[in-house]
This record gives sequence, structure tokens and C-alpha cells, in this order.
Amino acid sequence: MKNIIMTLLQEGNFTQVRAEILKLNIVDIAKIIEEFEDEKVLLLFRLLPKEFAANVFSYLSYERQQYIIETTTDSEIKYIINDLFLDDAVDLLEEMPANVVKKILKNADENTRNLINQFLNYPEHSAGSLMTIEYVDLKKEMIVTDALIYIRKIGIDKETIDICYVIDSNRKLEGAVSIRKLILSDSDVIISEIMDTSIISIRTHDDQEEIASLFKKYDLLVMPVVDNEDRLVGIITIDDIIDIIDKENTEDFQRMAAMAPSEEEYLKTGVFVLAKNRILWLMILMISATFSGRIMGKYENVLQSVVILASFIPMLMDAGGNAGSQSSTLVIRGLALGEIKLSDIFKVLWKEFRVSLIVSAALVSVNFIRLAVFEKVNFLTNLTVCISLFLTVVLSKMVGGILPIIAKKIKLDPAIMAGPLITTVVDAVSLVLYFSIATWLLKI
Amino acid sequence: MKNIIMTLLQEGNFTQVRAEILKLNIVDIAKIIEEFEDEKVLLLFRLLPKEFAANVFSYLSYERQQYIIETTTDSEIKYIINDLFLDDAVDLLEEMPANVVKKILKNADENTRNLINQFLNYPEHSAGSLMTIEYVDLKKEMIVTDALIYIRKIGIDKETIDICYVIDSNRKLEGAVSIRKLILSDSDVIISEIMDTSIISIRTHDDQEEIASLFKKYDLLVMPVVDNEDRLVGIITIDDIIDIIDKENTEDFQRMAAMAPSEEEYLKTGVFVLAKNRILWLMILMISATFSGRIMGKYENVLQSVVILASFIPMLMDAGGNAGSQSSTLVIRGLALGEIKLSDIFKVLWKEFRVSLIVSAALVSVNFIRLAVFEKVNFLTNLTVCISLFLTVVLSKMVGGILPIIAKKIKLDPAIMAGPLITTVVDAVSLVLYFSIATWLLKI
Repeated sequence: MKNIIMTLLQEGNFTQVRAEILKLNIVDIAKIIEEFEDEKVLLLFRLLPKEFAANVFSYLSYERQQYIIETTTDSEIKYIINDLFLDDAVDLLEEMPANVVKKILKNADENTRNLINQFLNYPEHSAGSLMTIEYVDLKKEMIVTDALIYIRKIGIDKETIDICYVIDSNRKLEGAVSIRKLILSDSDVIISEIMDTSIISIRTHDDQEEIASLFKKYDLLVMPVVDNEDRLVGIITIDDIIDIIDKENTEDFQRMAAMAPSEEEYLKTGVFVLAKNRILWLMILMISATFSGRIMGKYENVLQSVVILASFIPMLMDAGGNAGSQSSTLVIRGLALGEIKLSDIFKVLWKEFRVSLIVSAALVSVNFIRLAVFEKVNFLTNLTVCISLFLTVVLSKMVGGILPIIAKKIKLDPAIMAGPLITTVVDAVSLVLYFSIATWLLKI
Repeated sequence: MKNIIMTLLQEGNFTQVRAEILKLNIVDIAKIIEEFEDEKVLLLFRLLPKEFAANVFSYLSYERQQYIIETTTDSEIKYIINDLFLDDAVDLLEEMPANVVKKILKNADENTRNLINQFLNYPEHSAGSLMTIEYVDLKKEMIVTDALIYIRKIGIDKETIDICYVIDSNRKLEGAVSIRKLILSDSDVIISEIMDTSIISIRTHDDQEEIASLFKKYDLLVMPVVDNEDRLVGIITIDDIIDIIDKENTEDFQRMAAMAPSEEEYLKTGVFVLAKNRILWLMILMISATFSGRIMGKYENVLQSVVILASFIPMLMDAGGNAGSQSSTLVIRGLALGEIKLSDIFKVLWKEFRVSLIVSAALVSVNFIRLAVFEKVNFLTNLTVCISLFLTVVLSKMVGGILPIIAKKIKLDPAIMAGPLITTVVDAVSLVLYFSIATWLLKI
């Protein structure tokens, strides 16, 4: 597609370029434009019909958006800015450098400018910063015909008309009515008689994580946002929620791998920022691994008398770490999806205990045979290794299962308790177990 | 709420119970019913108005659904089954035991029964198994007025009427038109003139992961499903996609923690299934940790001459493992979200190399000072530990960065390459490095 358009552009056949582009979906048009160099970008963008321009613009990367704003005339910008959905305009302003922001605000009409300034004041990740104002509001005393006439008049600029919200004379949110219901109802019915009053709404300062879980719980496509006086001020649509779900998951992945969470895409993040996000936790874990080192130092004599014991240490430490992070991962995920509650801590402990018995038994059997048959390790040493393995796996799984719940109870992020932190705890515990059992069984 | 209803039930004040329940959202009604014991469940369920029953039913747990089907009369079941959306009915049948399935199919009308049987034949996780048939299809030669009349006639039973699909006389999908466009258009315009032809559709056998990524890419709310002859056979709505996104993420979390992925909720999964999902990988990792053991065995003499070296092994192994899984996690996530492509392998390698230099430098500085000042380790030993730490972190990060990409290239799941597998590789590498440097620097 890019090549076809490139050829047509070089031939100067702009009518044909436009025809080819318009066969595509908005998202794909943006993707094609993204692939061209700067001068071509502007040319292609100007070939778009006016009613497409703002929509395609909202799917371009911030670099391209900035380039277009910097190089186009004020009147073109005016058209784009005032035609963008308000949430997209606010996102744009949050990313642009000062000179671009100035040019944008200069060209926004007064109403848009005031709204943008108001939106920029909502805390990041709050409902206020996510919402858009392109919704349809109906008065509750309207009749269906009038509502439909009103929607025909104002609907073209709205992000969704599938659900219309019903307000009273003070703009207080009273209910919701779907366009389906309006179409299926008799024309003289009053809106308040057909509206649904059991609606789920959220306040401007509520956090995005809570909003996402409400969307999931109630299978919503759109949710109204109200201010402290219950007045309707905006709506949040599900496409923004999907982005949030992805971001929250990415944050959990990052925390579980011992990193400071970041919202930037990997390839677009600078080397220093990436390094900064990783150093702190690596440092903490490096220093806490000193405990394990101290333990090994303390049992120097054991290691010197039975040197072969050292060679099982990596296996024991890894088995404990892996067994523990299996359990913690399941529990962290269960907490994140709301499937496990804080009160389930004893259920989790009991479950992990039973699972760990089965898992340890399997691991120990294989290990015992392996050491006896293939490695020809003597019986008492083999027994030392196997008992340590058994206890390490059982303890790791129980610790892995309850640490995330305890973290949540004391208002820490459960994901931080995952893999690395548990590994460090389990390392120390497994070494102490191993050396104590060795001292006792091998009479060192 | 539960207590209010309980009291009203005991007083026999059913009218009031019904009034209280109807103030709630469908999802909350299901949640309340879920909390009662079996006999009360049936009583509450029968108090629901008929038009609510199927909808509330679809939000109950499989245990409650089974109980209701087993204990109600055929005519009640008939009403529920034929009123459920087809995708919910199919989900239900996939979970119920044989006797319940028989009772359900006996009470479904012939049309529903045929459709259910057809749907049960689509492969799990395919578009066919996710889709529902409650969509609105318009003929392309219709005019707007007729389309609206048609929608008024059939719309009440449809899962969504927000987007209507346009088909030709052979049911081939030709385009889509939103209800908004219909309402805003003049009444005598022909559908084919206002329909959007650049629609994104999917085939019945396409996989859910691909479907989810299309929904995200194009910000869709609903997507049409076509058969091999491009005939419209169903639609998929975004609420099902959110469940899929959560499930795919859960699978990635599980694979990254070295477990066989499972779709069941943790607390609802049996102990043996949980154990089974975990044993295989723990076994593989335990056996592969033997390499590290062998390496330590081989360098027995080094450990015996400078016993203090052993005490730094846990720190080195952990630092390598943690540094590696930081990198692999970011890359796995980037691949899953489509932010990193296979062709980016050298970009990733170069980025990880630079990041690792910064991170290692920071770790090594702190470590050197700590060993020199607090642990009074002699200079050459300190140097051995620090050089090993530096090289281990650099290598781990580069391996962690590219292993997931290589995995994807050879059609393995990148998530499997995460944490545990990388830890095993890195353990062996870091031990070889450590002992080689020690042999050389300390002249053992």
C-alpha cells in the first residue's frame, strides 16, 4: 500500500492517492501516513477530507502530531483542534512542548480552551483526566420524539450516542436510556418513564484502576462521570479502559520483575530512564543477598568437610525460588482480578500447603533416584539434600502464597512481593535448613 | 442489602423483596442471589420479572445455574434458555454435566438447539466459539426508513444495534452502518450509499488472541464474523474481549512463573490440578540446575583454597537472575502488546547493552565499597567478585533481552523464556565466569 501511494505521489496523481487512502480504515490511514517522511506526511494529511482529518490526527504518533502542528497554518490547526474529541486534545497537550501548546491554545476557540484548561487540572489517572464531554444529555421531562430530534441535531459531534444520560434541571444525573430503547419506544412516552435508574457512575477524582474494575464487573461500554454534587460532567468510553487494563498489567509485570513501573514503550524509552528504573531494586536485592552469603560464611566448616554439599546449593536455591514465585504469581494475579480476597488468607495457606506436599514429593523422588543412581552420592548426603529440598519447596510455596496477601493488607503493592523478593527470603531460609540438616545428619 | 432481603423474605413480604431487588443493577442482583442458600436462590430467582430472568441467570456461577436448572420445571427452563444470548447458552452447556445438558437441550426450541449444536463444534478460543448471532443485518438496497422500521421490529432481542451490518442477497458482508448514521441520515437514502465499507472482520476459525489485538488496534466495540465464503455468521462484542485480554495476561503471568497455564480461578482449582500445572517445569528446572552443580563440583579446588569465594555465589546468581528477568519481562511484554517486532532484535540488543553498562557500573561501585569497607575483603578477591558481577549483569541483560525474541522467531511462547529459564542459563554462565576469573586473578 505504501508503495502504491508513493508511486502515485511521485506521479502527482493526487486524486488517485486520495481515492486509495479513503478505501482504508482510519487507523490504517494513520499507520500509512506514519511511514512517510515529514514533507510527504503534510502532503498526505492535507489530501484527507476535512471530516477525516481530526480523527486520523488522533491516531498519529506524538512526533508526527507535533510536526503537523508546527508546520501547518493557524486556520488548519483551528479546524483540527476544535474537531478533536476533548480527551484526545488533552492527551495531546500533555505531551507537546511549550511552543506547540501555545500554538494549539491560540487556535482553540474560547470554549474549547477553557475546557482544556479545566481538564488539565484533574489529577493524572483520575476519571476527570480520562473522560470526554462529547455525550448526549436528555432532560427527564422530554418525550421520545423530542429526544430523537435533539439527538439528530447534536449527535453528529458526540463520541457515542448509544447511551444517552438523563439529567434534571440542575444537571444532576438521574438515569440513562439507550438509543435502542428510544427507537423501540412509542414517540409520546416521557423519558423518565423509560430511563434506567440503576446506573453505575463514578466521580471525577476516582482512580482509573477502580474505573476499570467497574467496567469489567458490570460489562459496561460507557460510564458517566459526576462531580461532588452528582452533576453529570463527562463520560468514559470502553476503548480508553482497554488501554488502562493493558497499562495496569504492564505495571504488574514490571513490579514482579523488580522494576519501577513505567508507562513508556520499551523502544521509545531512553537508556538512562531504563537503567534508572532497574537499579534501585537490583541494589536492594544485591545487598539483601548478603544474608545468604553470611549464612554460607558461617557454615564454612561444613562446606570444607563435605565439599560436595556446595554443588547442590544452586539447585536448592533455584527450586525454592521457582516454587515460591509460582505460588506468589497465582495469588498476585488472583488479587488483581478480584478472585482472591484478603479474608482468603487461610484458604490460600491450606491450599498451598497441600499442593506443596504433592509437588515436593514428586521432586524429591526424582532427585533421590538421580543422586543415588547417576551421581553415586552416599545415602546420608542424599538424604540431607532431599530433606532440605522437601522443606524448602513446602516453605517457599507457603511464604509465596501469603506474602502478597500480607502486602495488600498493609497497603503495599502485592506485585512487589513476587519473584525477586521471595527468592531472597527463600534463599536464606533454604541455606539455613540445608546446613542445619547437614550438621545434624552428617554429624559435622 | 442481603440482610434487608433476608428479613423481608422471612416476613413473607415478597412484593417488597421484588421492589428492593429491582432497584439494583442486573450484576448486583446476581451477586445477591449468589449469597443465599439453595432454596432461597430458587425463591428469589422466581420473584424476578420474566424479562430479567435470563439476564440475571447469565451472571450466576455455574454451580447456581446448575442448581436452578436441576430444580425448576421444564417450562421455566424453556423460557430462560430461549431468552439467553446464544454465546451465554453455549458457555453454559460447555460447563454443565451430561444430565443438565440433556435437560437444557430438551427444552430449547428446535432452532436454538440446532444453533447450539453448531456452535459447540467450533474450536475452543476461535471466533466461532466466541460470537453471538444476535446482530442486526440490513440489505444494502434498503432505504433508511425501512431499515429503521426493520430495526424496531427485530431490535429488541439483539445484543447490540449500535452497529448494523449490511449484506447482499447471498448474505455476503458488504459494509456496516451505525445506528447514529441511520438516525442522522435522510429517510430516503439507500443504505449502500451511507455504509462504511472499510470494515474489519474475522473468520470463524481465527484465534481469540488475534481478535483481541484487532479490537485494540482499531478501537472497535463490535466485530463481524464471516465464514469462508465471506458470509456474515455472527458478531463478537467487546465485553467478551476484555475477558480474553485478562485471560491472555494471566497465561503470560503463569508461563513467566514456570507454570502450565490454566483458565480456572485459583480458589476454584483443585489441589491436584494446581500441583500438576507446577510439577513439570519445576522438574525441568531442578534437573537443569545440575549444570550449575557440576560447575561447582569441577571447581572444588578453587572453593577449598579460597573458602570465602563460596559466600558470594548467592549474590552473583541472584543479581544475574534478577537483571536477566528485568530485561526479558520488558521484551516479553513489548512483544505481547505489539510494541516490539521480531526485526527489532538488534535494537533491543544494543539498548540492553548500554543499559547494562550503566546498571552494572552502579552495582559494582556499591559492591566494591561494601566489600572493601564493611567486609574487609582483600583487594584481589574483591576485584574477582566485582568483575564477575559486572560481566554477569551485562550478559544476563543481553541474554534476557534477546531470548524472548528468538523464542518467538522459532514459534515458541516468549513468556516461557522468562524468569526461571533465564535464571538457569545465567546461573551456569555466572559460575563459569566467577571461577575462571578467580583462577586467573588469584592464581589458584
